[in-house]
Order: sequence, then C-alpha cells, then structure tokens
Amino acid sequence: MDKINKVVNGITGLDHRLMDKAQERLDNLTKPLGSLGRLEELAKQVVGITAEENPTLKNKVIFTLAADHGATEEGISAFPKEVTAQMVYNFLGGGAGINVLAKHVGARVVVVDIGVAGNLKIPSTIHYPSSNKNNLFWDKKMAMGTNNFAKGPAMSRDQAVRSIEVGIEVFEEEAANGLDIAGTGEMGIGNTTAASAITAVFTKALVEDITGRGTGINEQGLKNKIRVIKDAIRINKPDSKDAIDVLAKVGGFEIGGLAGIILAAASRRKPVVIDGFISGAAALIAYGIEPKTKEYMIASHSSAEKGHKVILDYIGLKPLLDLDLRLGEGTGAALGINIIEAGIKVMTEMATFKSAGVSIKENK
Amino acid sequence: MDKINKVVNGITGLDHRLMDKAQERLDNLTKPLGSLGRLEELAKQVVGITAEENPTLKNKVIFTLAADHGATEEGISAFPKEVTAQMVYNFLGGGAGINVLAKHVGARVVVVDIGVAGNLKIPSTIHYPSSNKNNLFWDKKMAMGTNNFAKGPAMSRDQAVRSIEVGIEVFEEEAANGLDIAGTGEMGIGNTTAASAITAVFTKALVEDITGRGTGINEQGLKNKIRVIKDAIRINKPDSKDAIDVLAKVGGFEIGGLAGIILAAASRRKPVVIDGFISGAAALIAYGIEPKTKEYMIASHSSAEKGHKVILDYIGLKPLLDLDLRLGEGTGAALGINIIEAGIKVMTEMATFKSAGVSIKENK
Repeated sequence: MDKINKVVNGITGLDHRLMDKAQERLDNLTKPLGSLGRLEELAKQVVGITAEENPTLKNKVIFTLAADHGATEEGISAFPKEVTAQMVYNFLGGGAGINVLAKHVGARVVVVDIGVAGNLKIPSTIHYPSSNKNNLFWDKKMAMGTNNFAKGPAMSRDQAVRSIEVGIEVFEEEAANGLDIAGTGEMGIGNTTAASAITAVFTKALVEDITGRGTGINEQGLKNKIRVIKDAIRINKPDSKDAIDVLAKVGGFEIGGLAGIILAAASRRKPVVIDGFISGAAALIAYGIEPKTKEYMIASHSSAEKGHKVILDYIGLKPLLDLDLRLGEGTGAALGINIIEAGIKVMTEMATFKSAGVSIKENK
Repeated sequence: MDKINKVVNGITGLDHRLMDKAQERLDNLTKPLGSLGRLEELAKQVVGITAEENPTLKNKVIFTLAADHGATEEGISAFPKEVTAQMVYNFLGGGAGINVLAKHVGARVVVVDIGVAGNLKIPSTIHYPSSNKNNLFWDKKMAMGTNNFAKGPAMSRDQAVRSIEVGIEVFEEEAANGLDIAGTGEMGIGNTTAASAITAVFTKALVEDITGRGTGINEQGLKNKIRVIKDAIRINKPDSKDAIDVLAKVGGFEIGGLAGIILAAASRRKPVVIDGFISGAAALIAYGIEPKTKEYMIASHSSAEKGHKVILDYIGLKPLLDLDLRLGEGTGAALGINIIEAGIKVMTEMATFKSAGVSIKENK
C-alpha cells in the first residue's frame, strides 16, 4: 500500500497558469475563436496536465493488460476463457485490432500478463526488452485468474493492492523508456461482467441498466450474466467508499492494473486516455482512490456497451469518439490519442493572425 | 453542361458483391462480431465504392476551394472579405488549420482560387505543379466573387454550370496525379450565409433553424444574416427541383466547385469525405443533381453550425466525429479520412481466427 500512497500523494492539480497562456495562444491562431472546438480544449488540457507549453506526443504507449476471471465458470461469456491466452499470443504476433490501430497512430503496445489462466509460452525474443519495440510483453502474472465472485471475493485485499502496484510498476518502467501519453486497454474473457459489477457498486445504477452482451451473448445469457452480477454484489457486499474493497470483491487483476496505470500517469503528469467499458471500470477504481485523477483522464470514445456512458457521466468525462466500438484492447484509446495529437499540433504549428498577415474580426 | 452530364452518367451503384465478401472477411477477424462498429462499416463501404477487395488510401487529397461572396456587403460576417485572399496565402504558406491537420493524416492540400475577390500574387514556385507537393494551387478564378444575392442572383446559370465543371476538372487532374480518397474543404468569408440559403431551399427548414453565427457574429448580426437569407430566397425564387438553379441564385463558386468534386469522385469510384456546413451545402447540390452520389459520400463530422445536422439528416449521412468543429477548410474531412483509413487497415491487416489460432464463439 506504501507504493500506492506515495503515487497518490504525488498527484496535484493541472497547471492553470500555463492553460491560460495556451488559451491566449489558441485565440491568436488564424481561425475564428474556438472554431476548432474540442481539439483546442484537448491541447489546453494536455498543457495543464504536462505543465509544458509545447507538449509533444512522441512516445505513445497503449497498455493492454490481460487476465482471466473465475466467474467464467458461470457461463457469462460467449467465448471460452482460453481465448484470453490465445489473444495474448495474437497481440504479440501483431494480428489483433490493437496492433493495427496502435501502428496506425504510431503507438507501441505493451502487453502485460497480470493473471492469465495458463502458462504462456512466450518466446524470449519477444520478452521485454526486445528488438520488436512495437509489441512488448511483461510477465506479471499474479494468479491463474481471479476466483469466481459469484461465490466469494474475486481476490484478497492484498492481491487488489498488488494488482494496482503492478500497474504502477509497469508504467514507471515504460515511462523510463519514453512515454508522453498512455492509453488503457485490456483483454480478459468475462471482464465486462466484472466491469458491470464495479459500475453498479459505484454509480448505484441498476444492474440491468449497465449490463450488456459483451462479446455477444444472447437474451438468456444476458439474464444469467445479470443474475451473476447481482449475486456477486449481494454475497460480497463491496463497500463503495473503499475502492480497493470493490476491486478485491468484484474486480479483476487487469482492472486493478489499469487503475494503477491511471494513478501513475496522473502522478507523473502524463495524459491517460481511457478506452472502453472495462477501462472505464478501472477509471472508477482510480477515481475512487483519488478523484484528482479525473483531470488527467481523457475519454477516447463512448462504447457500445451501455454501462460505459454511465461511468463517463459519473466521473464527468466527455468521450471524443462515438463509433460503436466494443472490442476493448485499447482500440478506442489509440484512435483517441490520434485526435489529441491533432489538437496539440493545431496549437503548436498553426500560424498566428500576425505572422500570417490575416485581418482580425471587424464586426461583432 | 455536357461535361456534367457525362460525369453524372458515369455514376453507378456500389459493388454489393464485393461488400458481401468484405463482410465475410470482417466476420473472420480476431474480434467479436461487429465489435469494431463503424470502422468495419467504413471498410465495407470503401470496398463497395472502389470495387477493390483491398483498397488502400495512399493518396489522400483535401480540396480547399476559395471564393468570395457579394453578400458580404450586407454585413453578414464578423471578418472582412479580404480575409479570403489572406487565408489563401496562409494555406499556401502552410500555416492554416487545414495544413496542420492534412499533414497530420498524410494528405495533400489542393487550394483552388475559383472566385476570390482580388488579384492574388502567388509566386510561380508554389503554382501547380510545384516542388512542394503538399500545398498545391490552381488558378481557376471565375470572377471577383459572386454578386450580392440579397439583390439578385449570385451568379448566372452558365457560371453555376462552369463552377461545377471547374471542380470536375481539378478532380480529374488530381486523380491523374494519384488520388485514393478526397476530402472537401473551402474558404470564403460570407459562405455560411450561402450555405444556409441552400439548406433552407432544399430541406424546407426554417431559416432561423439552420442559420448560425459563422465566424462569430453577435445576436444583432445573426438577425441581419437571417434577414439577408430570407431576402435572397424571396427575391430570387430558387427552384429546389433544379439544383443548378439553386446554386446560381443563392450559392457560391466554391460551393459549385465542391459539388463538381463530389460528382467527379462518385463517377471515378473514389470515396469523398464531406467536411462541415458549407461542404454539406455542396453535397446538397451534388445530391440534387444525382442522388446516387450519396453512397460515395462519408460525412466526417457534425459541425457546431446547427444547419449542418439538418443537411446530414436530409441526405441520410451519419457523421463520424462530433468535436464542435466549425472552421471549414477541410479540417474535419482530414480527421475523418484518418478514421476511414483505420477501418481499412483493420480489414486488411488483422489476423483471422484461423491464422491466429483463436477459438471461436462457443456459447450463444
């Protein structure tokens, strides 16, 4: 817990003096006031986050954390849990959605096994550090997946703390290798069930209103999933005032790890781009531990999973994109990073009215 | 008119056989069915448009057409009309919003003077063809701006036809230089007034409901702008069944040129990405001439100018982005092109379940 406390104590507010300067700068660019809308807001926010007048996003990192969920034995997912491990291989082979989209936006993908059920056979050549700097792997396995939270807590409190610490550690290592912006991503068969449970506990929303079909269950499967979530909350009684208790009882290792990444990003003054529903649940945990993390978060998109909007509204985040994505892995975060970079380039590369010899407004 | 008729006759439907194949391919990629939402739809649409199984977007072109508007003498804009010419210099100097965003997404900007009021002094070094392949210039000036449509037609019918032909000509030339996707953009002080008039004529919306503050007029300026638009429609009586009549009476040269670009793109089976409100008005003209153009259009964003949504709903286009942009120039189109490219890469670069050894759905 010392590691978490130290990080939390390092989280302060945005640099409002530099944000005011950024606003002034934006207002002098050759465009009508505010006409680049959210691109301008993003540039200003990143100035406030980084406390740099000319931030650049050279090193973009998507953290894709993988873990399994004991609750899969309740039949909550359309895919077998073996897919979690199979997808880790796919990430490392470069064939998954996140690989394609991260490459598209110039980000590196950092894959972390924080609790995959199965002994992964990762060739040492793609172990971190490796020559393939675009697909990196960290072995931080804590267990062979969580316990079935329909029958008891998903993990111990110590494990919950440790999962957050793993996120902090991985972030710190990657920051040392160069990191200007982080995106959250995950893979874990069954993890929309955990995300729904976490969302219900924090936001007090009805389980029915924040539970979707995940990878594609049918109506009967959805009813069963809702039953499992309700059982998990009833049996474990997570305390919404204690985010680590919520994580331990109805969370997942990858969700704890992502909460750690969000906390570490905020303490290091780096923007952290939140992907979809499961990343949103991790944001709830981080926000529950330290509400100031909110100012360092940028919501990349609004997921097709209906609970996601409830999370964003609860924290007070406005998503950048609405493309009906529901894949996770960090795919929405990658696209969001590209929009944020566009905003920063607008601020730092456009000509001013004066430098371009363009007349300013005459009428009102 | 022969040139327009020839282009229109060349516009056919999408290739639905290849779109079905694209859907099958998307469904075999390592992700839950449909979980990349609109990225998948975009890939499929581009396959249908191009009739290519593996489309690439190597050559991206933003067409930024500039022209002036006689109605500016009614005091409808917050900026003086000289800004149109000044911004053309800014485009060619690389300092405008569209330069920054086009560069961000790897597009070239093609600037066309189709009716700027003033003799531009463009150094021959940046005349097309030039060594600077990212910022190209075409001198296609038809007049020193349109006439004041509050007092009579903006242009003659012959000029309206000619403005569309200019767009077709520029598109054809650029297609010969390499063009896989086009984005529409414009610059013209006063052109939101023309766009509102066109929108009112086609959609029958109330002028008040589709007229915004453009570059930033105040409440009194907005009232005056609405008055000018109503006068223009009352005096000129544009015929909504005759798109060229609408363009002639209440349009602008850049709007006609963009309509030509949209028609030419459709006839050449190239996706054309529609920017904001003024580009939307050009889309209305193209759609009025040939409704099949709709299938070749992709709406990049929903502008902060309120009439834009009315246009998109009328044609039946769903915007990709909602970032409160209202700059024009093609800025939203540039960002949209990047999302479309992401969709194509997903389709063509992701692994299949089989190739990656990932289990398929077991439960339902």
